[in-house]
Amino acid sequence: MSNKILSVKAKISIRFSDVDSLGIVWHGNYVKFFEDGREAFGKKYGLTNLDFIKVRLIPPVVKLNCDFKKPLMYGDSATIETKYIDSEAAKLIFSYTIFNDSTNEIVATGETTQVFLTIKRVLILTIPPFFENWKKKRGIIK
Amino acid sequence: MSNKILSVKAKISIRFSDVDSLGIVWHGNYVKFFEDGREAFGKKYGLTNLDFIKVRLIPPVVKLNCDFKKPLMYGDSATIETKYIDSEAAKLIFSYTIFNDSTNEIVATGETTQVFLTIKRVLILTIPPFFENWKKKRGIIK
Amino acid sequence: MSNKILSVKAKISIRFSDVDSLGIVWHGNYVKFFEDGREAFGKKYGLTNLDFIKVRLIPPVVKLNCDFKKPLMYGDSATIETKYIDSEAAKLIFSYTIFNDSTNEIVATGETTQVFLTIKRVLILTIPPFFENWKKKRGIIK
Amino acid sequence: MSNKILSVKAKISIRFSDVDSLGIVWHGNYVKFFEDGREAFGKKYGLTNLDFIKVRLIPPVVKLNCDFKKPLMYGDSATIETKYIDSEAAKLIFSYTIFNDSTNEIVATGETTQVFLTIKRVLILTIPPFFENWKKKRGIIK
Repeated sequence: MSNKILSVKAKISIRFSDVDSLGIVWHGNYVKFFEDGREAFGKKYGLTNLDFIKVRLIPPVVKLNCDFKKPLMYGDSATIETKYIDSEAAKLIFSYTIFNDSTNEIVATGETTQVFLTIKRVLILTIPPFFENWKKKRGIIK
Repeated sequence: MSNKILSVKAKISIRFSDVDSLGIVWHGNYVKFFEDGREAFGKKYGLTNLDFIKVRLIPPVVKLNCDFKKPLMYGDSATIETKYIDSEAAKLIFSYTIFNDSTNEIVATGETTQVFLTIKRVLILTIPPFFENWKKKRGIIK
Repeated sequence: MSNKILSVKAKISIRFSDVDSLGIVWHGNYVKFFEDGREAFGKKYGLTNLDFIKVRLIPPVVKLNCDFKKPLMYGDSATIETKYIDSEAAKLIFSYTIFNDSTNEIVATGETTQVFLTIKRVLILTIPPFFENWKKKRGIIK
Repeated sequence: MSNKILSVKAKISIRFSDVDSLGIVWHGNYVKFFEDGREAFGKKYGLTNLDFIKVRLIPPVVKLNCDFKKPLMYGDSATIETKYIDSEAAKLIFSYTIFNDSTNEIVATGETTQVFLTIKRVLILTIPPFFENWKKKRGIIK
């Protein structure tokens, strides 16, 4: 496994409708922020959902966890940092850290794991060529 | 056009996360309630999204309007009445009335219009046979 | 009424999760895009939800309509133009036009109407001083 | 700690709009299903968000995890079982199991942890009286 760190920071836009009646961003909306993070990562490094779909791979999320440390409020500005976590299994793992831009405090951390299915929804047990090539191109494996 | 009235009432479940920071159901969530109403109508009368998809028709919503008259709050119980509005065009129109179960007041009314596309997303200009048969079966046309 | 046009354009970010099983942005999500548009307008012209809340006004949406003309897909880039529509009543009206950035086609248009409530949720029938001052400042009224 | 098991089963309604472009329920929507489960539990056992808010406690979710084992599709019928997990700390923990009603297979499992804040958002470090009484009433503690 490589020591190479691939990560990307992206602004999160907090909508009025993201906030619940307690006045804080509803916790379920962080899953969308993680998706924003993954998307920003994918755009920077060539690994979006669309890139997978083009090579006929479906990359469903099979595991999700999130720790909520501080609330975000309407009007807050926040940033998500998305980091690629390499795995020797046929998995795509990202970790996330969300920062409040004003205080620079960590408001949440999380992780998602994706696997790869064929178009017919059969689980792929070995790293698909597209993803292996991506790892090589990015210097993660040789 | 027939005088026959096809309508169905369905309970709406208001989630904690449906409520915004003003303490009322966020207005955009009513679009989901309309979908619930359409779905309940479809189940009763054999006209769900799945029924269309089975005959290779895509029924996108092309027009939506909503009037919000009273707020709904977390903990409120509400009912949506969905009424079929017949049209001679190749359109599927529903009107909606949402009631607060406690006060019996109308909280919102709305209407949606759907059209029919082929799988290749070409607009169908005449009433598709599946829908025409449905109208006959339901006594809307002869 | 003034001829002054106040409008703002803002990029819309289309999430993977905004797209439904027909492969297009689910129609209900346009309500969020309208909110994005309103928010961008508010930031440019000093009229966000937060600005209202600060002066103890609640500005609920009481009317919404939307016409969906073309689908948006995952990966599409779009822009919303939000235009202030002046009214002599105690109402805040915006019209929206959403463009597909690649084709420059209009994908949707819509309009929302907001009214003003006191903190105790009583409808305000005359234009509140905060909003009247805003209109003067922006050259809409004298 | 007690061996008493408090749990409740509730039907999940899968909306057309819950499904993503891969044709499966978007993973982030399971957070709503967990909320449905918690709500059903709360209604059965007197421990809803509203019950907390009435005694001026805010119960934010601070930890969430979810394992997605099988996809849910539009048209599927599913059930969530929500189980109370007792903790000696000032925490409210639930575990969730979602079943596909047709196949009876487990489609997802998850867990949430909530803490208690005062109205002024100060973390409460000891079990609040309301919650302790609830535990006694339910035979979890003596």
